[in-house]
Formats: sequence, structure tokens, C-alpha cells
Amino acid sequence: MTPTPLPDPLVIFLPSGKRGRFARGTPVLTAARQLGVDLDSVCGGRGICSRCQVAPATGNFAKHGVTVTADALSPWNAVEERYRAKRGLAHGRRLGCQATVQGDVVIDVPPESQMHRQIVRKSAGDRVMAMDPATRLFVVDVAEPDMHDPSGDFDRLRAALTAQWGVADTLRCDPALLPRLQGVLRKGGWQVAAAVFDDGTEAPRLVGLWPDLPAGGLYGLAIDLGSTTIAAHLCDLTAGSVVASGGVMNPQIRFGEDLMSRVSYAMMNPGGAQEMTAAVRTALDTLVRDLAAEAGIDPALLVEVALVCNPVMHHLLLGIDPVELGQAPFALAQSGALRMAARDLGLGALAPTARAYVLPCIAGHVGADAAAVALAEAPDRSDDLVLVVDVGTNAELLLGDRSRVLACSSPTGPAFEGAQISAGQRAAPGAIERVRIDPATGAARLRVIGSDLWSDDPGFDAGLPGGRITGICGSGIIEAVAEMRMAGLLDASGLIGSPGATGCDRIVPDGRTFSYVLHDGRATGGPLIAVTQGDIRAIQLAKSALYAGARLLMDEFGTQGVDRVVLAGAFGAHISPLHAMVLGMIPDCALDKVRSAGNAAGTGARMALCSRAARRQVETLATRIVKVETAIAPRFQEHFVAANALPHAADPFPLLRAHTPLPDPSFGAAAGGGRRRARGRANTSDTPGGRTQEQA
Amino acid sequence: MTPTPLPDPLVIFLPSGKRGRFARGTPVLTAARQLGVDLDSVCGGRGICSRCQVAPATGNFAKHGVTVTADALSPWNAVEERYRAKRGLAHGRRLGCQATVQGDVVIDVPPESQMHRQIVRKSAGDRVMAMDPATRLFVVDVAEPDMHDPSGDFDRLRAALTAQWGVADTLRCDPALLPRLQGVLRKGGWQVAAAVFDDGTEAPRLVGLWPDLPAGGLYGLAIDLGSTTIAAHLCDLTAGSVVASGGVMNPQIRFGEDLMSRVSYAMMNPGGAQEMTAAVRTALDTLVRDLAAEAGIDPALLVEVALVCNPVMHHLLLGIDPVELGQAPFALAQSGALRMAARDLGLGALAPTARAYVLPCIAGHVGADAAAVALAEAPDRSDDLVLVVDVGTNAELLLGDRSRVLACSSPTGPAFEGAQISAGQRAAPGAIERVRIDPATGAARLRVIGSDLWSDDPGFDAGLPGGRITGICGSGIIEAVAEMRMAGLLDASGLIGSPGATGCDRIVPDGRTFSYVLHDGRATGGPLIAVTQGDIRAIQLAKSALYAGARLLMDEFGTQGVDRVVLAGAFGAHISPLHAMVLGMIPDCALDKVRSAGNAAGTGARMALCSRAARRQVETLATRIVKVETAIAPRFQEHFVAANALPHAADPFPLLRAHTPLPDPSFGAAAGGGRRRARGRANTSDTPGGRTQEQA
Repeated sequence: MTPTPLPDPLVIFLPSGKRGRFARGTPVLTAARQLGVDLDSVCGGRGICSRCQVAPATGNFAKHGVTVTADALSPWNAVEERYRAKRGLAHGRRLGCQATVQGDVVIDVPPESQMHRQIVRKSAGDRVMAMDPATRLFVVDVAEPDMHDPSGDFDRLRAALTAQWGVADTLRCDPALLPRLQGVLRKGGWQVAAAVFDDGTEAPRLVGLWPDLPAGGLYGLAIDLGSTTIAAHLCDLTAGSVVASGGVMNPQIRFGEDLMSRVSYAMMNPGGAQEMTAAVRTALDTLVRDLAAEAGIDPALLVEVALVCNPVMHHLLLGIDPVELGQAPFALAQSGALRMAARDLGLGALAPTARAYVLPCIAGHVGADAAAVALAEAPDRSDDLVLVVDVGTNAELLLGDRSRVLACSSPTGPAFEGAQISAGQRAAPGAIERVRIDPATGAARLRVIGSDLWSDDPGFDAGLPGGRITGICGSGIIEAVAEMRMAGLLDASGLIGSPGATGCDRIVPDGRTFSYVLHDGRATGGPLIAVTQGDIRAIQLAKSALYAGARLLMDEFGTQGVDRVVLAGAFGAHISPLHAMVLGMIPDCALDKVRSAGNAAGTGARMALCSRAARRQVETLATRIVKVETAIAPRFQEHFVAANALPHAADPFPLLRAHTPLPDPSFGAAAGGGRRRARGRANTSDTPGGRTQEQA
Repeated sequence: MTPTPLPDPLVIFLPSGKRGRFARGTPVLTAARQLGVDLDSVCGGRGICSRCQVAPATGNFAKHGVTVTADALSPWNAVEERYRAKRGLAHGRRLGCQATVQGDVVIDVPPESQMHRQIVRKSAGDRVMAMDPATRLFVVDVAEPDMHDPSGDFDRLRAALTAQWGVADTLRCDPALLPRLQGVLRKGGWQVAAAVFDDGTEAPRLVGLWPDLPAGGLYGLAIDLGSTTIAAHLCDLTAGSVVASGGVMNPQIRFGEDLMSRVSYAMMNPGGAQEMTAAVRTALDTLVRDLAAEAGIDPALLVEVALVCNPVMHHLLLGIDPVELGQAPFALAQSGALRMAARDLGLGALAPTARAYVLPCIAGHVGADAAAVALAEAPDRSDDLVLVVDVGTNAELLLGDRSRVLACSSPTGPAFEGAQISAGQRAAPGAIERVRIDPATGAARLRVIGSDLWSDDPGFDAGLPGGRITGICGSGIIEAVAEMRMAGLLDASGLIGSPGATGCDRIVPDGRTFSYVLHDGRATGGPLIAVTQGDIRAIQLAKSALYAGARLLMDEFGTQGVDRVVLAGAFGAHISPLHAMVLGMIPDCALDKVRSAGNAAGTGARMALCSRAARRQVETLATRIVKVETAIAPRFQEHFVAANALPHAADPFPLLRAHTPLPDPSFGAAAGGGRRRARGRANTSDTPGGRTQEQA
């Protein structure tokens, strides 16, 4: 009479719900692998990396039909105790490779232990970052050399990586690493941590080797190389998190403020392109070096860099003379993505073995930055029709949905960034960034960068950064002009009304035109900050270019309207959708369908840094997106002229007007009689207070 | 009544014999391609490259059943005329892409027009060189940029290479080439010559681009990096021919004459390895630069380099500290072949895009040079058992046949190269390289490097390079010692007999031993060149090491004899097989089965340079060859001691003695009575004149 044998314990993994019975003594990691549960491990079950951390649950789980006792997992063993003593382990956590199954158990796999985890990082724009990095760490046991069966140390390391981790046996050793290989293997006692770069497009490459597992793992850089600023994010290649961010001005500014002036510099000055290449590479390298130092990260752990930039910056970074980009047909030297050694880009601040990935360009005027925005915002996966506007010195626009995506670029000029504006300045502490004008009084309330208070809040003056208001930045000038339009101080043609016509004492004569005084700091030695007629014209030119680009794409797409608008770019994050629409920067659209995406190009760069799948995706996307050339489209000029009015001469903007009725004064010489009437109409509009609260 | 239509003309290609009927007007190149005839073309039928040259034959070909008339091919067209005017075309040759079929024709494809040709080059050692280079040239028509369908210039070039030449669409542009790409495409009017590197192990790579097809094609370097000398062959990558050869002394000699002293230098001096790496890289780079200048070749056309070297040189070249090679278990950093950018080896004299291939090593003491010898001599394809001996400061030995191949290295020391010999010198003009001793008189006849005369020929003294004899080189001392042994002046134990015991007045007392005077130049201010007892001992040590290595391999193979012996190495080329065998440097073997292979390592390097198949072959071979470690084999010591005698204490050398009976005097103290008798026996041997003529 043999007693019925007890069944093997039941193991249930959460959140997947995968379950199975396993013999007592089976390590949790082994059970997870056999069930296909997504549980990470870098050290291969040696109790070193703690990537396989699990949280066992105890108690009665009616839903799963099991009761878990406190002894469902084995007691702590020496390896687990050593790990906890050395590096610490959160309460309730066990090492999945050490804890073994002893009874029915429910095991939670926390997000950070999932190999293909998706991690939401608040600090870098609420993006869900899917991890599929090209460079991964593996702890590996290497066979010692045997005189009677001779083989190279690297050859045995490769065999071990193949056997223990499934790394392809075409693995090569980066030549820069080879001189250090033998020493590290011996120092590690033939157990080492190996970094393998495998992006699926070339033979995998050994790019790092350490005698002990580097505690923080590997790192990479996502760089958005703009005409004006260079922004870099130092990212953890395991978690996808941003460890440090920083930015510097692009030193090429001294060769020309905008792209075309840099192309001219290269054309006019022999060696000019090389000079600009050297300047930007040095700035990049210094930025990376500073970021790594700030984050306290060993440069040997910086194994990858992903770069986005516009076509001119792309060429200058790569050492290519951008002359072809300055003339039709605007041919790029290479539009596809580029893969190379980071040191081939002069980046010595990373590991000498580090690899660089430059995202693909879409066309001669629509660069890798636009491709990165497309990757981040995925218009190609949108069910409704979305217009993505990346606002900068040059604006890139994407319009599309699942059926197709169009792209163009538009030369908006630097007005949106505060340049070419009488009191304009870059977005920096002391700059006016928010403006509200009371239509009844014509008085303005302001907010400046570096202070959380409005100018009519108590303590505003005392809290001003640097003690004074210094100028007005891009978002400030946009709000000021839009508020002037909403308050009836400005007519649809962009003309500022006289004090008499508007009844506003903030308006002062300024030569043959008028200016609106936003802030007079002269009494305390500060500047007079006014919106001049010239400023209005500069904003009109910039917004016309932007709007004309959007309309050209809409023509090509065969649509009269868009369902959604996404404002991208660091600057786009600060633009108020209402004010942008009042100016007619973007097409008419329900205001709650206008969203800021922050630095979408930088996000796209991070995605490409963290994921091989994202690289494949952006490469496909870049070839699928249809580029519409603004430089030669006759309709672009027509659209540009029609878009000069605020918001537009012909397009009615019904959704905007339903939300915010606009007064329609006319201050032109031929329409002098209309001024009073217009002012009166303005007074019948919604109170600005209601709008302000809604949009603040 | 329609007349029976004439059949299409019959086209017969020689030497393949492939035949087919083609419509009148079909270009010969097209016909060849459709029949699978091996006819080259680099320009794709544009009449530019002349690689498709053919030689049409006229007359009656009974064997093929056709009669070929003079108008069987079309008359010369403008393209063909232009080519002939510009570059010349040998009599009887036509361009296969321009000449069209007009009637039955027999067409000979000359060897140089065969894509996979095998070319015999007398100048580089009668080797059949199979061409399958990794880098090839293609003339390609690239689509011009189109603003409405934007794509990068490289992307269009890649598409053209894929469409017109079947290059894989994973082609990448080398980052060093990218800055020049747009200019070349425009200069070439969108028809350019592209060099594509595709070794089958990584994505193909664009490594060169020219607006016109470079007249001489592409070039590469095969380098044999030895401890003492560095030899380089500059090769035509189309024809496989050696365009220029050169050599320099390895500048590392100043850090140590032999390998182990260089390893010691690295161990004793911090930074010593880096110092030696820099020295050898600079020497290599200078050598390449000089060779290219000598041959008048644009460095941009030097696109590949293949390198062979022993393990210590291998590590020092790669910047790896060789310390592990100085101690058991003699672990190499990497034994497999290495592929990298030539600039990663500090080779700036080649194109910046040039690729380097370092042949695989077999083991810690058996390097890429031995692997190259194995590739060149192919013991693994030998039906009979062959011993390949690469003689140098360190000797490498290979023993095997189709069943298996064994390898070992043996520390022979520098005696065979003239070092550690009293009057020794390197092989250079003025050095004695040949010696014949008349056994009857004990008188020596000599030949020196730089003169074709023997010392008893009229005009010898007048023809001496530099006016005098300066010393004795490796092959000279080997012949001298062997001739002394054959003349009975030396006994089997290596002892020089006294003038009394030998009756030879060339023998003079020299301290407690005797020396044999080869040449006395003192009267004219030159040196006294004698073979001392110490010289004999040095040669005995060196040859014992060599023989012991061979015997160890024979033990391991389970054989008492070998069928063939191949002497490799630059020095091996100058050793007389008879004299080597008399000394017992190599095992007993029929003398006509002993062959010199010249610089087989250099030949192997050339094969790897010219052929991807050869690379695959040597990589397989290197892992298949079984290495026998001499340093730890107890039997090696036994074999070494037994091999001290001339030719050997125990092995009878019956084949040698049947060919050349050896006198067996004994000059040891305990055998004083035998001296006269031995001398007498020597006189009964064959006349040295007969042997000399046979071996001369």
C-alpha cells in the first residue's frame, strides 16, 4: 500500500498568471524560465546581479486556489545572505536564483525584474520606455587556458558566452578592448562581466569586460544636436532611466545663427566645414565628459550614443560639407541610419569601444530630429489625423495617420525663440514668459522665468530673479501678441491700434506706428519692454511659414482639418495652445486636442538608444514618410500670404472662435471709422479671467 | 514558300568549351554570361575596364565543327576604338562587351579575363594564386538626386550597386569615406568606380570611390612580420601579382634579439610592451609608405592588408602585453583570425578605409606564421606524410597528411641565422653561403653572397662584393659543418679532430680545442674566418632542438619516418637538403623528397590577401591542427640529447647513408687510437665532387 505521493508544489507567477508544478528544490528562476515568465538575470543564477529579485506572497489566494505558507520558499542561503549584507535587498524580496520552491507559492515579479519591462519615468516626460538595448551585460564563467588544448582567451570567452548566454559565435572582440582582455580575465578569476553589443545588423562585438559586475550596469547617451543648443541625456541602459541631463549652446553659432548661414560659411570659407565639425564634436565630447563626471559614472561604462539632428547638423557632425543641402535638389550624403564607432565622431569621453547610432534623415530639409519626433509621436499609428509640429528655428511638420504620413520643413526663422524681437531674449531667468491682458483696461499681467508669481501677486518684485525683468522670450511674445489680439488692441491684419482707437494707455506712439508697453523698468534702471509693430510683423512672418507648411501638408493629404495637434520641441512645451491658435500658428482644432509633447526629438533619441526595435521602426518610418518640398511648391507662397492675418485671412477657425470669440477691429488707414466700434465689440467677448484660468 | 531561316550563330568559348546559339548582335559578354563562362567585367559592359577582353579565332575548327570567318564578330565600334586609342589593346583582342556575334565564332578567354583566374607568377615563387579578393571594384551608374523622391546619395549608390552588381543591400559606407562621397559622385557625373569590401563575415562596406576607374585597380599588402625582419609584398588585387616587395629589420631588435628577451623586456619595463608596439607599427607604416612610393601607387588604392607573425609579434602588433606567452600555459589573447580597420593597427600609409586581416594562430608558440605555412603547403591535403619545417630563430614544424596535422615549435635559437657563431653574420653581400671541402686535401672552396663564382674560379677575388669576404651566414655555417663531417674532420659527437688525427693543415689549435680555417683574409686586412669547436656546439644545440621537435611530432603521429620534407622560411630556401640531413637537422628521407618552399609564410599571407576562400581555409585549418607542446614534453629532452650527435646517436639515417656514406672517425680522448683509422675510412667515401655537382 504505497501512499499516494504528494503532488509537486504549484508555482504561480504574477502579474502574468503563468503557473506550473515543480519539484521541491527547484530555484524560482528555473521555474520562471521553464514557464516563459519574463524574469531577468545578468549573472546567470550566481546570486551576483539581483536582477531576478521576486516578491513571494503568503496567505490564502482564493482566486488562484492556493494557500501559501511562510515556508513555501527555502530559507535564505549563504549566497543570498552575502548579497543582502553587501548590497542590500528590499524587505520581502528574495533572489529568484537562490530561493527554491518548497510548497505552493504565489510569486510577484516586480517591474524592475522584468527583462522586457516598460518603465514610466516621470523625470523624462512620462514616457513609457520599452527596453531592448543593443548592449547587454552578461556574467560568464570562462574556461581556463589549457596548454594541451590551446585556444585564445577571447576564443574561450566567446565559447562561454555562446554556451551560457546564447551569444552568436560570430562575436568579435573590439580591437580597443583586446589589450586589456587577459588581465581582466585573470583578475576576475575567470568569472567576468562582459558587455556585448549586438544590434542585429552586424556580428556581435565584445565592448566591455570587468572582473566584477559593474554595480550600476551600462549607460548610454541620447543626444539632440540642435542648431542652437545641444541637449544630452545620460541613460541607464538597463532601466532606461535618465541619470543626468545637460545642455550646452552649439558653438557653431559663431559661424552663423541659423542653418543656412552655416552652409554659407562652409561655402565661402575653405576648411570652414571642418572647422564647424571640430567645434561641434569638441562641444559634444565636453558635454558627455561633464555629464558623466556629474553623475559619477566611469566613462568605460558609457557604451552607446544615439544622436538626432537636422540635416545640416548631421552633415557637419559627420564631417561632410553641407554645401549640397544649400541648393536644390538638397541631396543628403546619406539618408539612412548610420552605425559606427563613437570615436569616429571624435567622442573620446565614452568608452573607446562605444558605438554610435545616428537616426535616419527623411530628406534634405527633414532630418533625423524629425524622424525621432515621428518615432516618439508615432503619427503612423494614430487612428485620427494628427499634425505634429516641432517648433524651432526651422520647424518640421508631420501630418498623418495609419494610412500615411507626410512631412515638410518650414523656415520659420528665430522669432519664436525671441530673436529679431525688439526686447527679445532667449528663454532664461528674468525673461517674460506669460502675459495676460485685461481687455477692459488694457493692462498686462506678467510672469517671468525663475518666478512662480504673477506680476500682480504680492512679493513679485522682491522675488524676481536677478532683481529685474530683462526681456521677453519666445512663448512670452506669442502670448503678448495673442492677448493683444484678444483684447482688441491689434486687428486681424496685425496693425496695433492707436491709444485713441483702442482707449488703451499702454499703447504709445513709436515713430509712424504704435507700441504696446508690457513693462517699464526704466525707473529702477531696467529696460522698457514693449511689443512694437516690427515685433508683430516678425511673429506674423514666422507663424505664416508654420501655418503654410501645415496647409501644404493638408492639401497633399486632401483634408481641410486635423483631428489633433501635437506641439513638439523644447519650445513647444511652453507654448499655450490657445495663444498659438489665436495667432494662427496651427490650424483650427478643438483646444483639448492640442497637446505639448515636450522634447519629442530627444525622446525619440532615447527610444533609439534603449531599443533595437525602435531603431528598426524609425528606419522603416523614415523611408515610409512622404516628404513634401516647401521650397518649390507654388501653393506654399499662396498659403504663406493668406496666413499673414491673425489668425487667418480666409480660414474661419470656427472651433477657436466658438471657444474664444475674437474682436475684429480694423486699424488700417482706410478703416479709421471702425476703430471705436471694434473696441466696443472686444468688450463683449468672454472675460479674459475665465480663459486664463482655463489655460493656466 | 518561306525559306528555311538560318539558325542563330554558334558561339564556342575556350578553354571551357561552353557553347550556345545566340541571336546576331548579341554582345560576346552577354553570351558568356548566359553560358556561365568565367569572363570578368568591372565596368558592367561600358567599355571602360577592358577586363572582358577576348581573343576571337578564325579558320576551320574541325574539332568543334565550325568555320569562323573574319566577320564573325562585329566591326570595331566607337567605344572600342576609343578604348584602344586611350589605353591600348593587344593585337587580336576585342572588348567582349562591345564586339557582337555576327556568325559562328570560337572565342578564347585569356587567363587575365577570367574572374576566378589562377595566375602563376614566377617572380613570387611559382605559386598558383587563386583570386577571390574581399575587395572588388565596380563601375556603377547612380541615379541623380530627386527633390520629389528624396534619398541620400549613398543610399542611391547602394541601390545601384545592388541592382547592377548584386552587392548586398546591407552595404555600409565607411565613415572615413562619407565626407568625400558627394564630391566624387558629382565629379564622375553619377558614373563612378566603387570599391566594396565584402569578406562574407560582416555587412559589405564601401571603402573607395573614384570618378574614373583607377587604371591599375586595387592593391593590398601581404606582410610577414618576423622577429628579425619584416617583409612586405604589395600585390595587385585583380591579378594577384606582386608589384613591389621590400623588407626592413624589425626595430624591436633593440629591445631583445629573440622573442623571449622581448617578453622579458615587457615584463621588466612598465610601458615596455607599448614601446615595442609603437616601434613595430611605425616600421610597418614606413615600409608600406616606401613600397607604395616605389611602385608609384596612390595610397588610396591600398585597401587591404593581410598579416602573419608569430604569437609574440602578433600580440605586440595588436598592443597586447605578451606576458602570458612567457609562462605556461602560454595563453594567447585571441587565437582566431582578426578583422579590423588597418588604422586600428596604426597603419596610416594605406587608405583610411583599408581593412586588415590577421591570420589565426594555432597556439601560444605556434603562430599565424605557422598557420600561413600550413595554408601555403597544405599538409592537410597531402596524400603522403609530409614534415614542413619553417626554419628561423624559432622553428615551427608541421607533420601530417589528409588524416591529421600536428604542429609544434622548437627554440632553435639564432645560430642558423649566423648569430652566436664566431665569424657569423646575417645573410648579406660578402658572407660565405656555400662551402665545399675536398676530403682528400681538407681544402675548402667557398661562395659568397653577391658573387656567382666559387673561390677557385678565376676572377673570384676581383668579383667579391666590397672587395672582401666578411663572415659566414647561416647556410654557410651549416654547409661548413656538414662538409667537415663528410670529410672526416669532425666526428659524430661533433668534436673537431687535431691536425695530426685528420691530416688536415687547415685545422689549427684554438685553446684546448681545434678550429677549421675557412678563409684567412688577414693579409689583405680582412678577417680570419674559422669554424670553432664553439660554433659546432652552437649548431648542434640548434639542430638538436629542431630534430627533437620533428621526432616528438613523429612519436605523436606514431611513425618512424616521413615521406617528404619541406623546408620553409626565407632561410630554408638557402639550405642544401643534403647538408641539412648530414647535420641531422631533419629526419632521414629520400633527398629528392626534400624541397624548399621559400617564404611559405609570406606566400600564405598573399593567399589570404587575395582570397576569401583561403581565409576560411586557414581558419578551419588553425583549429584542426593539433598542437604538441615541446616545453613540457619529457620526451622532448630525451630526443634533444639523442639528436646532439651528427647526424644522430641512435637513428641510423639509412637513406642518407645510402646516398652519401659518412666517415665515422672518433676524436674523443678515450678513442685516440681510432683517429688514423677514421681518416682512412673517410678516404674511401664517394668523391665530394660527385656530390657537389649533384646538389649544386
